[in-house]
Amino acid sequence: MTPHHGIPQIATPMPDHQVFEAGDVVLQSGRTFRNMRLAYKTFGTLNADKSNVILYPTSYSAQHHDTQHMVSEGGALDPSKYFIVIPNLFGNGLSSSPSNTPWPDVGSRYPDVTYFDAVHVQRRMLAELWGIEKLALVYGWSMGAMQAYHWAALFPDAVARIAVVCGAARCAPHNHVFIEGAKAALMADPGYRDGVFTERPVRGFRAMGRVYAGWALSQTFYRDELWRTLGASSLEDYLVTAWETTFARRDPADLLAQFWTWQHGDISANPLYGGDLAKALRSIKARTLLMPGDQDLYFQVEDNRLELQHLREAELKPIPSAWGHRAGNPVNQPDDRAFIDAQVKALLAR
Amino acid sequence: MTPHHGIPQIATPMPDHQVFEAGDVVLQSGRTFRNMRLAYKTFGTLNADKSNVILYPTSYSAQHHDTQHMVSEGGALDPSKYFIVIPNLFGNGLSSSPSNTPWPDVGSRYPDVTYFDAVHVQRRMLAELWGIEKLALVYGWSMGAMQAYHWAALFPDAVARIAVVCGAARCAPHNHVFIEGAKAALMADPGYRDGVFTERPVRGFRAMGRVYAGWALSQTFYRDELWRTLGASSLEDYLVTAWETTFARRDPADLLAQFWTWQHGDISANPLYGGDLAKALRSIKARTLLMPGDQDLYFQVEDNRLELQHLREAELKPIPSAWGHRAGNPVNQPDDRAFIDAQVKALLAR
Repeated sequence: MTPHHGIPQIATPMPDHQVFEAGDVVLQSGRTFRNMRLAYKTFGTLNADKSNVILYPTSYSAQHHDTQHMVSEGGALDPSKYFIVIPNLFGNGLSSSPSNTPWPDVGSRYPDVTYFDAVHVQRRMLAELWGIEKLALVYGWSMGAMQAYHWAALFPDAVARIAVVCGAARCAPHNHVFIEGAKAALMADPGYRDGVFTERPVRGFRAMGRVYAGWALSQTFYRDELWRTLGASSLEDYLVTAWETTFARRDPADLLAQFWTWQHGDISANPLYGGDLAKALRSIKARTLLMPGDQDLYFQVEDNRLELQHLREAELKPIPSAWGHRAGNPVNQPDDRAFIDAQVKALLAR
Repeated sequence: MTPHHGIPQIATPMPDHQVFEAGDVVLQSGRTFRNMRLAYKTFGTLNADKSNVILYPTSYSAQHHDTQHMVSEGGALDPSKYFIVIPNLFGNGLSSSPSNTPWPDVGSRYPDVTYFDAVHVQRRMLAELWGIEKLALVYGWSMGAMQAYHWAALFPDAVARIAVVCGAARCAPHNHVFIEGAKAALMADPGYRDGVFTERPVRGFRAMGRVYAGWALSQTFYRDELWRTLGASSLEDYLVTAWETTFARRDPADLLAQFWTWQHGDISANPLYGGDLAKALRSIKARTLLMPGDQDLYFQVEDNRLELQHLREAELKPIPSAWGHRAGNPVNQPDDRAFIDAQVKALLAR
């Protein structure tokens, strides 16, 4: 935050979000999460018949700050037309997370929270705060896309459309392995003991960032030195400034909690579908836009292609981009952004 | 080693290799490696005109034990026809490596050894031990393939053919980043202090193995559960038995030393070519077979394709395989092995 007057300020920005107090939530695991809190931010105005609602859940380690750039007038997520709600995913440090949960539910005792748990709390929030029962669109990137898929599978009549940007209905096995590597790098830190980070994991943050760097972008991104477009002066400069930084903004236990959610993501892992992924996909009524990055290394196009054959009304539109998984979060990629906006606008017009 | 009689034996196998004492070697860096030793193993018989020599350098962290399965009668590397020499790459624990080098040249003081250094010592060995000046073939996988490329670029008149299996003339930027992740995971271990491993890096070995697991095989390998063909009972069983094991067999400082060699691999990084990769590629006279795995995630087909346009007499024959980088080391993949053998036999016949 830029100080607005002459008095030196400590950098504690005013929160620009609100919190839905969900109370005691019985999780899918059987444990009760006490005083569960869902941080959210809204944009635009709910119309009279409540038909203009877009839900835009957050991605791995992201807070609404990091993803709200997609909400803009003239874009697909247009706050002059839609009432857009960003629910912060549990574990991101704003909603309930290890970092803001009291003893003894910390470290390895932190309750496992599934996407199933998350979207159920989101649904309660929409109903209790605004009386919203139906969504025009759930739009999400990465873990946000997995939440969109869960919405469509768990509440088929409540969701008209979903945009699955670089996501999947289930965490693919290779995606699971990629996460295992990133997790193990973080947990190798000397400060991780008995399931708890006893000090700031300096090595672990750095290692996890460097592991992640290879996965989040494509081989082409690095071959063509596209990091130059981000202002980095060398590859090492990019690794340090982008990748040793991004996860170090978060609490390490929060990072592990969200990895757990991600790895266990599966729209069929519930009594409704009993692990039958094809059945869960067939039950989706929402018009579905599958938009993987065509060079994404962990949410692969092929996984969406396999899902497609079970979906009623779906399209597969890979984003042609060297930005790999990051194609779906086009902070500095005008072409990717234009592609996504055009596809989502077309989806909203159907 | 299986005991051959009733007396219980401690598992210290007799070495099945020999050692070339290279003496004091002035490295490309300017440092002198004192008493440098090159461990090697030979197969077959050198013919009278010394025209039947195949050099088969080793890959990352591998010793000749791990790669000699490709040497077999009826295969391309046929010891009944060829005199096959496997030079163990420096840093692999048998040739000079941090683990067998005395104080003070350990830890971060260990001299940087390039492929340029390695192939020069290999060349001296061939000349001094057997009077060999020309090679029918240099065959290599991964770091072995990078050595083959260095042979062809640095000694254009000494090499008739090279088979570059899942390798490249230069470590691609993305490949560099993948290694950064694996390195950082190992070095995050509590036992790594001031550039030295002061204890066995249990967490580091595990983390590096899990990171590597995602890179060495393809997404398809995991989707199709091809680890079942290796006898693993679950994905986790595979990660533990294969990936937490493979690097833990080595000294951690040796692993870092070879990573350094790999990351700095570049056939043009020497006074001969002054960093001009195209020039180095154009200078190669060897018939060149480029054989990437078509789903290799770090030695990508695309890098070989870009090299191809500068090579005089080369073919690009991707291995059609879900085994990713491992396609080029077909321990348990009969199809990959048959493909490689057929291509290399055709190369040898030209």
